[in-house]
Amino acid sequence: MGPHPAVAAIRLAVRRVLHDILTELNIATTGGIPERAAVGAPAADTARGRPQAPLVLVACSGGADSMALASALAFEAPRLGVRAGGVTVDHGLQAGSDLRAEEVVLRLRELGLDPVESAAVTVGRTGGPEAAARDARYAALDAAAQRHGAAAVLLGHTRDDQAETVLLGLARGSGIRSLSGMAAVSGAGGRYRRPFLQVDRQTARKACMVQALPVWDDPHNADPAYTRSRLRHEGLPALEKALGKGVVEALARTAQLSRDDADALDTWARQAEAGVRDATGQLECAKLYALPPAVRRRILRRAAIEAGAPAGALFARHIEEVDRLITGWRGQGAINLPGKVVARRQGGRLVIRQG
Amino acid sequence: MGPHPAVAAIRLAVRRVLHDILTELNIATTGGIPERAAVGAPAADTARGRPQAPLVLVACSGGADSMALASALAFEAPRLGVRAGGVTVDHGLQAGSDLRAEEVVLRLRELGLDPVESAAVTVGRTGGPEAAARDARYAALDAAAQRHGAAAVLLGHTRDDQAETVLLGLARGSGIRSLSGMAAVSGAGGRYRRPFLQVDRQTARKACMVQALPVWDDPHNADPAYTRSRLRHEGLPALEKALGKGVVEALARTAQLSRDDADALDTWARQAEAGVRDATGQLECAKLYALPPAVRRRILRRAAIEAGAPAGALFARHIEEVDRLITGWRGQGAINLPGKVVARRQGGRLVIRQG
Repeated sequence: MGPHPAVAAIRLAVRRVLHDILTELNIATTGGIPERAAVGAPAADTARGRPQAPLVLVACSGGADSMALASALAFEAPRLGVRAGGVTVDHGLQAGSDLRAEEVVLRLRELGLDPVESAAVTVGRTGGPEAAARDARYAALDAAAQRHGAAAVLLGHTRDDQAETVLLGLARGSGIRSLSGMAAVSGAGGRYRRPFLQVDRQTARKACMVQALPVWDDPHNADPAYTRSRLRHEGLPALEKALGKGVVEALARTAQLSRDDADALDTWARQAEAGVRDATGQLECAKLYALPPAVRRRILRRAAIEAGAPAGALFARHIEEVDRLITGWRGQGAINLPGKVVARRQGGRLVIRQG
Repeated sequence: MGPHPAVAAIRLAVRRVLHDILTELNIATTGGIPERAAVGAPAADTARGRPQAPLVLVACSGGADSMALASALAFEAPRLGVRAGGVTVDHGLQAGSDLRAEEVVLRLRELGLDPVESAAVTVGRTGGPEAAARDARYAALDAAAQRHGAAAVLLGHTRDDQAETVLLGLARGSGIRSLSGMAAVSGAGGRYRRPFLQVDRQTARKACMVQALPVWDDPHNADPAYTRSRLRHEGLPALEKALGKGVVEALARTAQLSRDDADALDTWARQAEAGVRDATGQLECAKLYALPPAVRRRILRRAAIEAGAPAGALFARHIEEVDRLITGWRGQGAINLPGKVVARRQGGRLVIRQG
């Protein structure tokens, strides 16, 4: 008898990602489990002349999604000649969070992961509580990955998380890049991998249950003070009631399609940019005018960011206003952008600079 | 004292659209109200050698949005040398709908519109009740516009309608084209105009109230049997509660940005298509492979539709499967698409045809 369908689903998702990682490391995985001795190794290890299996870490909060991920990694990694380790981040935001982190460490060790560590971080205040916690968490995970020479860090975000992220992006109204959710591969050198973006939360929970893995429910996830929590417990269920059960899947597919579209348009904008600058590198309004609005606005956005406008503070309405210097020119004055950047039209050229 | 802000807002929205229409008809509107005699005219009238002011119709259900639109058109049209008329469509779906249509006709006449008519239609069953009613309605509006030689037909869709349309598109999960909502200008020759896409429903209601215009609340709009009605009364309010009051505006802005992006990518795909066909017009897999996924999938979609697949039945997952013949070729068999269209890879070519 094979494993429970939920367990099979999470293992398959992890196996695919491990295959991808090994393929990128140029390690053949065909013909079954590679010989330990034949396995290639990260540069740091080959330098010592002793090939070692690549290490993949799982970032684990102790919640159902990341515990399911840890269990699947523990199962699949040895079969593919991969070492599996784990990191749990202690955000220090709740009393006893250090003890809980220790408990997660024990559970990951029980699954057979090695190395396993807890990383305590100090959460700042920049960008609001959710963003600050996220920044601190990724900094700790980056540090752990580097310290252990890990080839990748797996994150337990599910299809439901992805759907929530798309809705959060939709609420910004800033275009398709913010609809593209979380990438399956992200971070420097593709360090972060999200094997569960096609797996729903219910499957992860079920997999923990049938494997008798104790899971921890973060009270933050149910706290209506958090936008994501309100979305999870009220917004998305109401949308499902109105639009049908397929909403989560539709949102996740929208993320993937939007990401591909945004990537293609970014490429186009990069390629078109050289052609709209004059010999001195200034943007020519007539040439910008001839471009499709979607491409032109991306060039304007890039120019504003290059001039010093912070990307996070630059909204669609800012770019629209700059765009009107091109498409609706009637002698209007300079446009003030975030980061003390100013855009103005001068003699048929668009000048965007700080100060 | 000027008009109430709500009335000023709806009039401004209509004035802008009338200006656009006149500009496209090549009728100068600068320097105030044009002389009646100086106004150009649609071809049908110039043929008789007697220049006549262009006619703009409003499609009016008697509800608040379209009554507000009718009142603004009645006010603005004579000031710009435009004739204003109205059409109400009797869908025949409720007892007494004919009497109600007659009442709307009377109200539009009271506003000073001329010509005004009621058009009775028979709603079929194709595509579900909402789609069938819409098809019948637009057929009647097309016929009325042609009969009267109207330059345009104004529709009362508001920013709230647009937000709902974006969410309905999101639920399809079929990409950014379905997120782009309703166009400000659509139909053959740009016949249909939606002046209120930036005006919220509350403003339209308020404008009716302060002008003492009686409005009719269509019971369909509150009937939870309709997806749009559930979205309006449950889905969107829950999203606003979770994400904040700006959701409707964000969705409407997403529509505009998505539309521009989708247009640009369609243009790219059209231009790229010639380059990926061989001398006999067949699609070359190697050349398709080199394109960005967003562009390649659009070419595949166009090819499937050209081969006879009905656009409405062709989902993202179909195109993904065809795409794997290019990107994940491992000798798989033919892919069946809607409309008995079959896609297969043969000798490095992608063959998509019916039967």
